[in-house]
Amino acid sequence: MITTTTVTPLLQQYRSVRKWTEDICRPLQKEDYVVQPVDFVSPPKWHLGHSTWFFETLVLKPFLPGYTEYDPNFNFVFNSYYESLGARVIRTQRGNLSRPTVDEIYRYRAYVDSAMEQLLETPLPPDAETILVLGCHHEQQHQELLWYDIKYILGHNPLFPAYSDENGNEKEGQQEKGFTKMPEGVYETGFSRPGFCYDNELGRHKVYLQPYAIANGFVTNGEYLEFMRGGGYREFSYWHAEGWDWVKNNDIQAPLYWHNIDGQWHHYTLNGLQPVRPEDPVQHTSFYEASAYAAWKGLRLPTEFEWEAAADKFNWGRGWEWTESAYLPYPGFERVAGPVGEYNGKFMVNQKVLRGASDYTPKGHSRPTYRNFFHAPMRWQLTGIRLAKTI
Amino acid sequence: MITTTTVTPLLQQYRSVRKWTEDICRPLQKEDYVVQPVDFVSPPKWHLGHSTWFFETLVLKPFLPGYTEYDPNFNFVFNSYYESLGARVIRTQRGNLSRPTVDEIYRYRAYVDSAMEQLLETPLPPDAETILVLGCHHEQQHQELLWYDIKYILGHNPLFPAYSDENGNEKEGQQEKGFTKMPEGVYETGFSRPGFCYDNELGRHKVYLQPYAIANGFVTNGEYLEFMRGGGYREFSYWHAEGWDWVKNNDIQAPLYWHNIDGQWHHYTLNGLQPVRPEDPVQHTSFYEASAYAAWKGLRLPTEFEWEAAADKFNWGRGWEWTESAYLPYPGFERVAGPVGEYNGKFMVNQKVLRGASDYTPKGHSRPTYRNFFHAPMRWQLTGIRLAKTI
Amino acid sequence: MITTTTVTPLLQQYRSVRKWTEDICRPLQKEDYVVQPVDFVSPPKWHLGHSTWFFETLVLKPFLPGYTEYDPNFNFVFNSYYESLGARVIRTQRGNLSRPTVDEIYRYRAYVDSAMEQLLETPLPPDAETILVLGCHHEQQHQELLWYDIKYILGHNPLFPAYSDENGNEKEGQQEKGFTKMPEGVYETGFSRPGFCYDNELGRHKVYLQPYAIANGFVTNGEYLEFMRGGGYREFSYWHAEGWDWVKNNDIQAPLYWHNIDGQWHHYTLNGLQPVRPEDPVQHTSFYEASAYAAWKGLRLPTEFEWEAAADKFNWGRGWEWTESAYLPYPGFERVAGPVGEYNGKFMVNQKVLRGASDYTPKGHSRPTYRNFFHAPMRWQLTGIRLAKTI
Amino acid sequence: MITTTTVTPLLQQYRSVRKWTEDICRPLQKEDYVVQPVDFVSPPKWHLGHSTWFFETLVLKPFLPGYTEYDPNFNFVFNSYYESLGARVIRTQRGNLSRPTVDEIYRYRAYVDSAMEQLLETPLPPDAETILVLGCHHEQQHQELLWYDIKYILGHNPLFPAYSDENGNEKEGQQEKGFTKMPEGVYETGFSRPGFCYDNELGRHKVYLQPYAIANGFVTNGEYLEFMRGGGYREFSYWHAEGWDWVKNNDIQAPLYWHNIDGQWHHYTLNGLQPVRPEDPVQHTSFYEASAYAAWKGLRLPTEFEWEAAADKFNWGRGWEWTESAYLPYPGFERVAGPVGEYNGKFMVNQKVLRGASDYTPKGHSRPTYRNFFHAPMRWQLTGIRLAKTI
Repeated sequence: MITTTTVTPLLQQYRSVRKWTEDICRPLQKEDYVVQPVDFVSPPKWHLGHSTWFFETLVLKPFLPGYTEYDPNFNFVFNSYYESLGARVIRTQRGNLSRPTVDEIYRYRAYVDSAMEQLLETPLPPDAETILVLGCHHEQQHQELLWYDIKYILGHNPLFPAYSDENGNEKEGQQEKGFTKMPEGVYETGFSRPGFCYDNELGRHKVYLQPYAIANGFVTNGEYLEFMRGGGYREFSYWHAEGWDWVKNNDIQAPLYWHNIDGQWHHYTLNGLQPVRPEDPVQHTSFYEASAYAAWKGLRLPTEFEWEAAADKFNWGRGWEWTESAYLPYPGFERVAGPVGEYNGKFMVNQKVLRGASDYTPKGHSRPTYRNFFHAPMRWQLTGIRLAKTI
Repeated sequence: MITTTTVTPLLQQYRSVRKWTEDICRPLQKEDYVVQPVDFVSPPKWHLGHSTWFFETLVLKPFLPGYTEYDPNFNFVFNSYYESLGARVIRTQRGNLSRPTVDEIYRYRAYVDSAMEQLLETPLPPDAETILVLGCHHEQQHQELLWYDIKYILGHNPLFPAYSDENGNEKEGQQEKGFTKMPEGVYETGFSRPGFCYDNELGRHKVYLQPYAIANGFVTNGEYLEFMRGGGYREFSYWHAEGWDWVKNNDIQAPLYWHNIDGQWHHYTLNGLQPVRPEDPVQHTSFYEASAYAAWKGLRLPTEFEWEAAADKFNWGRGWEWTESAYLPYPGFERVAGPVGEYNGKFMVNQKVLRGASDYTPKGHSRPTYRNFFHAPMRWQLTGIRLAKTI
Repeated sequence: MITTTTVTPLLQQYRSVRKWTEDICRPLQKEDYVVQPVDFVSPPKWHLGHSTWFFETLVLKPFLPGYTEYDPNFNFVFNSYYESLGARVIRTQRGNLSRPTVDEIYRYRAYVDSAMEQLLETPLPPDAETILVLGCHHEQQHQELLWYDIKYILGHNPLFPAYSDENGNEKEGQQEKGFTKMPEGVYETGFSRPGFCYDNELGRHKVYLQPYAIANGFVTNGEYLEFMRGGGYREFSYWHAEGWDWVKNNDIQAPLYWHNIDGQWHHYTLNGLQPVRPEDPVQHTSFYEASAYAAWKGLRLPTEFEWEAAADKFNWGRGWEWTESAYLPYPGFERVAGPVGEYNGKFMVNQKVLRGASDYTPKGHSRPTYRNFFHAPMRWQLTGIRLAKTI
Repeated sequence: MITTTTVTPLLQQYRSVRKWTEDICRPLQKEDYVVQPVDFVSPPKWHLGHSTWFFETLVLKPFLPGYTEYDPNFNFVFNSYYESLGARVIRTQRGNLSRPTVDEIYRYRAYVDSAMEQLLETPLPPDAETILVLGCHHEQQHQELLWYDIKYILGHNPLFPAYSDENGNEKEGQQEKGFTKMPEGVYETGFSRPGFCYDNELGRHKVYLQPYAIANGFVTNGEYLEFMRGGGYREFSYWHAEGWDWVKNNDIQAPLYWHNIDGQWHHYTLNGLQPVRPEDPVQHTSFYEASAYAAWKGLRLPTEFEWEAAADKFNWGRGWEWTESAYLPYPGFERVAGPVGEYNGKFMVNQKVLRGASDYTPKGHSRPTYRNFFHAPMRWQLTGIRLAKTI
């Protein structure tokens, strides 16, 4: 064990990230770690193993001399989508694996953590530090996914078990009203400060924005209920063609996790089923729903550039905010060789950019230039809606 | 607690059946109870709950005055296919449920068992006894399914964990060679002895059999390997048209659980991967494969009536034996009203009859008139092949 | 051209069969020849080509010296399911082929017919005669399929065009009432007369029948309407489990071609939409529906052996009669080598036997031993319902 | 009949557009009009009817007093995707309709044309003229789709029939080499000239472009063959993740219509199968392939704004050019009420913009601001590849 006096900031960051992952999982029953009720959800135990495998594969194996792999089969089990790192269990099969057990995966974590501590006793080559820092941010992304997946697993169980009884659901105040006007002109966009960012934020560059206004607050549950009561889910003209198909094929009538119980709208939260509070931001809508709501209001969603240009004018963070922008490379984007190059670039088609952060985003894991992305119908991630208009 | 002196045979049967189910599950890790790697497999914890629910719903609720249901939600979770008993989790969703937990389900079992003990303190009305006995046989069927499902769950895990290291795989002697000739004539078929049988065995009646001969032993792995090496999986003419499609669409090249490792055939067993022993009966083939093998030999499978007429001439029990017969009602078959009537009759189309028993069949759960049935492509159940010919 | 005086019975048969196929197609528009609205329907032009290809491939090529193939590509286009005769357009793609054109296919027919006339100028070797006779019966089967497919193509067009305005729909009398009792005992079943039969009818053999009674007439539309009005399609207990799934998944509420127009049941016929006449036999039900109707009446369908034993006691022919029997080989069934061996045997799993004949069966193409077969949910073929009971 | 002296330019345009549609279809066999070999292809007869239905529904019914609809059922048959105009045959069913016949649809065209001539005898209200002009451009779009669909229907027939033997395939010269540099700065984009444009081109506005260079010519077959021979289809790192799945799931190895015959690449053209000429522009690639090719070259595709800013620097028109841009609304885009508003806006998600024109684009149907759009995997439309780079 390293004494406190020698703990480097890097080790501190590593320890803190690793601990938070396990803290999130602490209230789970062992069975909750295992299931995968839908293809886009991963079993919590898979997240625990995969984030560990990342450090083992990309840090320990190349940089810790004499490191012995924990179990050679784990590469097959815990690789997510890295084509350059070999064959893998296909995503839809993750919930079929009872082994390795949860206890075994915690042992795997401890084993890798111990080797990481050893590695960090001496200064790292810059390459190793870069990938280690990426590994910490990578695990933070999986922390947020863990919350989504735990919520989905419990929230789709017919018994609606609460994740936790403590804390939870303090009432917040009213959302800010009104819009902030932004003048037309050339703006700079993209990351340029010191510190970590993903490759997809790089290549700071100029964009020309037409004059616009952006909402000061999120759309609330109460406002969204007006849309629902006004027939928003039954009138095709508010919807993209494929959004309308999605509504009809899946019989969508409300945001995810909403249940109408005896005429009163409830939604599943980590504290169990709760009545929907009109003043809270509406969450768990798809891009289709966010866009249809905007159309119903005669407004639109902001582009990611409009959002970034105005990001210091409003509070953000209750939910990732759908933008009108498609997830595309910035002009100077370059795809790095090797597995790290598979991190972002290969997903740059047919997804939408979300900006901001959510209740589940780990501390320090967002910034105004952060580009999150999901497919248009996805809504198990924690989303919010902010409106905009051309003026 | 009831003292030993008062234990009725019925209670003894109940206790022994219930205990065996839990004995089967003892070596499992908690995670093994949860997963459902394919739609026809049920999670072990579901079997534990469902067999308990059967007694609660069909015995305790109607016959134990003042009985309080353990949890009203469990009816939804643990109903299998009984339309008459209300809505249910669809079969393909069983593996998505992390709750109720395994511990909770064992508590449910204990709760129901305790109520059953109480019920059995006094003599039962005949109706109750009938359904209770059916419940015991029902749970025995699920014991056999438990074995199949556990084997599938562990045998499809990339780590190939053994269920158990003890006992297992003693070598048995050679299979009997040759055929027994049976004269043509009128035979009686169907159940007529005292004791329990399923409704599908009832209506003992006459059938006329042409002269035939039936094999004294099972087809062995060694014989089946000749078929494989002779191109049996590549020559359409041995196969039914839909069997041939099944082979091609699923790239079938060997029985289930077989793996060719460095040129040597192994198969997954409850003791882990083992070399295939040529003298053992071939197991885990589908009807298509059994029939194609017979065609390749210039022979055929017996009908269920031929099998039953000769059942005292040979040893059976290593695997359920595919017959040529379709699963159809006997001439006098009558479907009972209510949930018990859903037990067999509604499945009498597009399935094949299997006769005999398997290594996994609970003691006392088979007899010469027992009609097991599965769809033609199924092979996770423990099957064997016995040949026949018209003479 | 051969003079009339030399026309052999075989040539006469050939000419007459070939002509009837074209007579059936005469009222079609060219577009009607082309489409395939569902996978189990084939475009009429495909039937015209396929039945011709059968003679070219199995008669002319092997038996007419110097015969020149019409077009080598046609083997690929017009092979149906004969694995032994090479690659083929998969069944679901037949409706995607605009070429060869209808005119071209008629030229193909004329070319092959002319070669066949030439071949038949001199006596044939027995092998050739056998396959030629099979070819005629094969084409007759396709004639019946042609009727089914034409009816489906026109009957599923939103304009509901009539195939023909002439003749059609004369009222017939009442169906016979009552049942004929048949004594138990040993009966002979299977073909034994001189003349043509399919291989699946061969191997005349004994069966033992329990005492039973079989209906003298078909179930009528009026009787079936009672079942519908009595909630037959809404009560699961009359249905096989997979039949019930079929009803729910396809929202089945009536026989095929039935439409409720302003509260009055109509059905599509070759003369267009017509009111359903209560006294006519109900047609176009699936096995599931036939069986559910029988269950609702407290009766059952006959087995194919019961049907055959009593076939001289009642009129049959308005629709192929679903039996309870699965389509299985007779005890002495042998699969011939080569393409002819693919005719029947490879379909002997998961289908039901139908006995009798239908309004669309070509003259001389049925007999009491004829075993027709279809999958349980199929109902575009012309079916009828006859009931039976164990007594 | 109207005398030549009175023919207005609008009528002239109408007549000329309507005639060209029929000219395209003239070489077809009647069967070619009917089939739909894949869901995104429509039968030619459907295009003939649908473009006619557009005029009948949106011009004649509202603006020609006393107009009698040709057949009320045609609305159901020929509506494409206009939710506001009632129920319709779903797209995948278009190839199942043998009726109305081709002759009937030509009669429908003549009937509507005659009414249109009558309507155009007198000056139109501006509303009517607007929609009539849109109808002409709409029919031109369907002319281009007609070419795509005819090519697909004939090019996927196992007989590979030529559409026509005349004209065709003159050799063109070399493609221009090199790149044109464009300075960074603010550019204007969008339609601003007099004349017709679609709503998606409107809202001319400023964009800021980083310095870039754009290719003077198309990528040629010869260059693309180098990519193929260099393993481009086997190396995942050039591909988007979903593009790589597309390659593997569909076993893609070359552009659409390419066939390797005895080691020599051919492609299906309207003149039949022809050897691929290395100096011609490569056509019929998907966005995934265009993007992977660019990645293999270390370059990228242009954005639609880069393309438009440089459109007067190079020749375009052999194929629609994939851009990196997603199909999104311009800042000032407004969706019109009613059916015309369904023309473009509702498709603005998950599609890519293509710019330019193709060999099949009707004269006068493109311009530098024209925004065509297709889904990333689509390639039956006539596409080309132009490269770009950030400098």
